[in-house]
Amino acid sequence: MSSDTLYEHPLTEQVRVYLRLEYLLDQINQSSTLTDDGQWRVFFRSLFDLVEILEQVQVKGDLAKDLEKQRAKLETWLDVPNVDTEQLKALLLESRQIQQALLQGSRLGQKLREDKFLSSIRQRFSIPGGTCSFDLPSLHHWLNLPVAHKQSNAEQWKQTLAPLDDALSFWLRLTRGSAGLQPCTVVNGFYQQDVEGANLLRIQVSTEYNAFPLVSGHKSRFAIRFMPFDESQPVPDMMALSLAVC
Amino acid sequence: MSSDTLYEHPLTEQVRVYLRLEYLLDQINQSSTLTDDGQWRVFFRSLFDLVEILEQVQVKGDLAKDLEKQRAKLETWLDVPNVDTEQLKALLLESRQIQQALLQGSRLGQKLREDKFLSSIRQRFSIPGGTCSFDLPSLHHWLNLPVAHKQSNAEQWKQTLAPLDDALSFWLRLTRGSAGLQPCTVVNGFYQQDVEGANLLRIQVSTEYNAFPLVSGHKSRFAIRFMPFDESQPVPDMMALSLAVC
Repeated sequence: MSSDTLYEHPLTEQVRVYLRLEYLLDQINQSSTLTDDGQWRVFFRSLFDLVEILEQVQVKGDLAKDLEKQRAKLETWLDVPNVDTEQLKALLLESRQIQQALLQGSRLGQKLREDKFLSSIRQRFSIPGGTCSFDLPSLHHWLNLPVAHKQSNAEQWKQTLAPLDDALSFWLRLTRGSAGLQPCTVVNGFYQQDVEGANLLRIQVSTEYNAFPLVSGHKSRFAIRFMPFDESQPVPDMMALSLAVC
Repeated sequence: MSSDTLYEHPLTEQVRVYLRLEYLLDQINQSSTLTDDGQWRVFFRSLFDLVEILEQVQVKGDLAKDLEKQRAKLETWLDVPNVDTEQLKALLLESRQIQQALLQGSRLGQKLREDKFLSSIRQRFSIPGGTCSFDLPSLHHWLNLPVAHKQSNAEQWKQTLAPLDDALSFWLRLTRGSAGLQPCTVVNGFYQQDVEGANLLRIQVSTEYNAFPLVSGHKSRFAIRFMPFDESQPVPDMMALSLAVC
């Protein structure tokens, strides 16, 4: 009956942005079939949130640099005995191709910002209940078009984000894979650790403790404090959970 | 193959608010099963949008007055021959009960504003991508609770909105039912009409015209201008559509 909840916490400002973008891209991908009624809301909201973040932060350069750093680490494995060098070389090639695709083309999100339909409806999404048919009759018309038409539009919009999606997925997949979850005991709801050049903290904890972690930290140190979800049920003195520092 | 799109446009400031609230309540009701991944996003976003509107606008008094006005109109039918007076009396009773329930209790949305969990996560929903697990670990914990637990919470939150939902639904149902859709011809994409004490305009138009209506108007006059959705396909000289002034 017990189930686990996985929390991820960024330990650098860049990874914070990456996780946010990945989260929004996941929502965009999951909702882009536009078959259920609620999906278009999630789709457009996530798309506009993503465009807003890309306006505020220059992700391209940071991500390209992080891919390079990741390759430098991978290359140190090339001389280690019993390593599958073929697979490693394929990964390095994939990383270079993904980085090239990321750096090519216009500024991230530029095509979405320039899309006439999207920019005509975007403002209204920040107003409470601002997407009624009388607020956005053009959106209401679009929603009544055949589903294949809408899916084709959604696919085009998504395509403009493919280089970002590929690069983020690649970097995060290898980063998450760089360290496995290790058992860990938390005493009195508190845990802290010194680390070296860490990017990402992953915490897997049983939902049954009915507590959630508040994390503070950076590249070289982090602290976790567990808070009771229900104040009538205090955090146990000893908690067994799994931790990965990636 | 042809399908119709129904647009509704408020002709008073009050009805504008009512339609917005109805739209949000519909979203809340549709997404409150919380079984699909996207539903919790729609659920909380709609709930918080609704709370924000209820903070800005005093709906209770307006809606109570409008229910009274509606009853006054209904009562004029009591003396008309061949009218089902039993049904009419039942409607009048229902309206009075609904109004009473609306006026009782605390300010609309008050209980949602005071809910500890809701108020702890609300702010983050206005930040782009601000509902990641590291932004809102308490929400992330809640999302991993058994679905029955989440549905029970959602039901409690929805229950606090029941008097508003009932009153709005009743008033809008009778208002919409007060006038049927009538055929109407729009020439050169423009139509205007003088009316008397109208609340709501309903426009049913074939999606095939590939045009959407921009409406301006108030209680006693309205104008509709159809805009091409795709600029390469101009609005036809003559459009046949259906119109109801409620």
